[in-house]
Amino acid sequence: EQLLADKMDLSAAESFRQGRLVECRRVYRQTFVIRSYEVGVDKAASIDTFMNHLQETALNHVWMSGLAGDGFGATHGMIRNDLIWVVTCMRIEVDAYPTWGDVVEVDTWVAASGKNGMRRDWLVRNYKTGQIISRATSTWVTMNQNTRRLSKMPDEVRAEISPFHLERFSMKDKNTVTQKIDRLDDTAQFVQYGLTPRRSDLDMNQHVNNVKYVGWVMESVPVAVHEKYELSSMALEYRRECSQSDVLQSMCSPASTVPGNEGDVEVNGAGCSHPAGSQTSIPDVTSHIPPCLQFTHLLRLQVDGAEILRGRTHWRLRDSKHSD
Amino acid sequence: EQLLADKMDLSAAESFRQGRLVECRRVYRQTFVIRSYEVGVDKAASIDTFMNHLQETALNHVWMSGLAGDGFGATHGMIRNDLIWVVTCMRIEVDAYPTWGDVVEVDTWVAASGKNGMRRDWLVRNYKTGQIISRATSTWVTMNQNTRRLSKMPDEVRAEISPFHLERFSMKDKNTVTQKIDRLDDTAQFVQYGLTPRRSDLDMNQHVNNVKYVGWVMESVPVAVHEKYELSSMALEYRRECSQSDVLQSMCSPASTVPGNEGDVEVNGAGCSHPAGSQTSIPDVTSHIPPCLQFTHLLRLQVDGAEILRGRTHWRLRDSKHSD
Repeated sequence: EQLLADKMDLSAAESFRQGRLVECRRVYRQTFVIRSYEVGVDKAASIDTFMNHLQETALNHVWMSGLAGDGFGATHGMIRNDLIWVVTCMRIEVDAYPTWGDVVEVDTWVAASGKNGMRRDWLVRNYKTGQIISRATSTWVTMNQNTRRLSKMPDEVRAEISPFHLERFSMKDKNTVTQKIDRLDDTAQFVQYGLTPRRSDLDMNQHVNNVKYVGWVMESVPVAVHEKYELSSMALEYRRECSQSDVLQSMCSPASTVPGNEGDVEVNGAGCSHPAGSQTSIPDVTSHIPPCLQFTHLLRLQVDGAEILRGRTHWRLRDSKHSD
Repeated sequence: EQLLADKMDLSAAESFRQGRLVECRRVYRQTFVIRSYEVGVDKAASIDTFMNHLQETALNHVWMSGLAGDGFGATHGMIRNDLIWVVTCMRIEVDAYPTWGDVVEVDTWVAASGKNGMRRDWLVRNYKTGQIISRATSTWVTMNQNTRRLSKMPDEVRAEISPFHLERFSMKDKNTVTQKIDRLDDTAQFVQYGLTPRRSDLDMNQHVNNVKYVGWVMESVPVAVHEKYELSSMALEYRRECSQSDVLQSMCSPASTVPGNEGDVEVNGAGCSHPAGSQTSIPDVTSHIPPCLQFTHLLRLQVDGAEILRGRTHWRLRDSKHSD
């Protein structure tokens, strides 16, 4: 009787979750209504909201596929081997931000990434129009949860996952995923010191959740940029775990700035490359504000400078139409 | 044709939201599946998650009732008068924390509170068992969004809301709602300095969202308390708005500590009153750890000490059964 109740509860949770497997069970699809607390001053969803929905669908996908053990997306085989998933890189492009009350539909699927990794992709659509508003891709490897060292993927784990592989890319340009991100040093133009994780930043894997890093990356970007621009894409390379006792620095610089050339962020250096030439050669004569900006980011430990994460962000002027 | 599309979209959003009016349209009821990013290390929902769900149901209630203008829960009459809602006090009791994948059902309704205020109550149930796991109540007044001064409630606004009034209390003891909270001063035992709102802490009303204050209140409580205890109830008095440029201090003290009597927090002072006598007269001889703790809180501006919020929290030992 208890077992039956558990099963009914499970199907209730699954029904309330509004997620299901589609395309021969290779794709997990779930809808979300953008909630009041997932939007900012401008009523638009934040990048954190996108990242949270990506994480949620990834975990529900593992669960729905019958692969999930008791952990945070870990398969039964991973649990037998004391392994957890850690993300090594993540890239997301956002063409349009949904607003409060909008319904979005998220598709996610996995593929192999080399011998020991897994790639996970996402597509986010505006449910009403069907338009793709965001594309994302990520790479995951396994880590021993006791030694905290990366592990080879055991054969039994690959055997669990591979029936669900789907060789499809969400990103239009596969190469953008693997572009190297420069390492910032002490010459970084903007630095926020003394960032400390809160207890609520930790996840079930006992480390700072990867989505929380995004808030720190955003914090170092000048307010003037946040006000005039919106994030159009972000690439993150996760280098090491971060625990609650760590104190971090969040640093960023306009991407094309070289050490010693530290001009005003809005007009020098940060303009992103433009199909028809560089921003400096074709200035926006109406306002002198470049249509897009690019920043390089670094999160590092304050105590010894150990790298936590490298990042690169692109920004477009608010209210400017996105052109493909 | 566009109008029809908008209507279809609206009903889609409402259907996906899984909320509806019940009890002669006096109560708004919505289900939530606890998501992966709404839980902490222990897989249990955080107090922030509860508060977010309360806010979300309040706003959806206003929307579903047909009262909502374009604002953050403001009625048409409020928008005509440039008014926004501000919360003056909030009290929440949590008997049991749902965990990842659990389904909760939230009921909310409103009543008058004096001549110029509105009371809003909530009940949260475990959907599977029907058990009430949380009760909450709050008081709201109107503020002019240009002058940022509190306003009398215009007759037209009261006329909009009063048909939805329901004279029912969610709290078992109505008196607990109005208990005065002492003001802490510089003798507070635990102080966190230099708290600064992030851009993402602001809501559509251009100030720090009231739920964000909860994180700061929690931050000043020692880690040892978080580890051994869970929050059983919280009372908050909101004193003034907080904007992004403010720098805050979060202070707390065991509730029964008087200045100069600063012993170890876990065994002296913070023990809450017990039906059968004080904690010190009936010590827990097995461990010397009191079964519950009580703290007084203050958030204030660092620059001039202006009060932002007073609070009181109660905590119970983890894994101890809740007794009514």
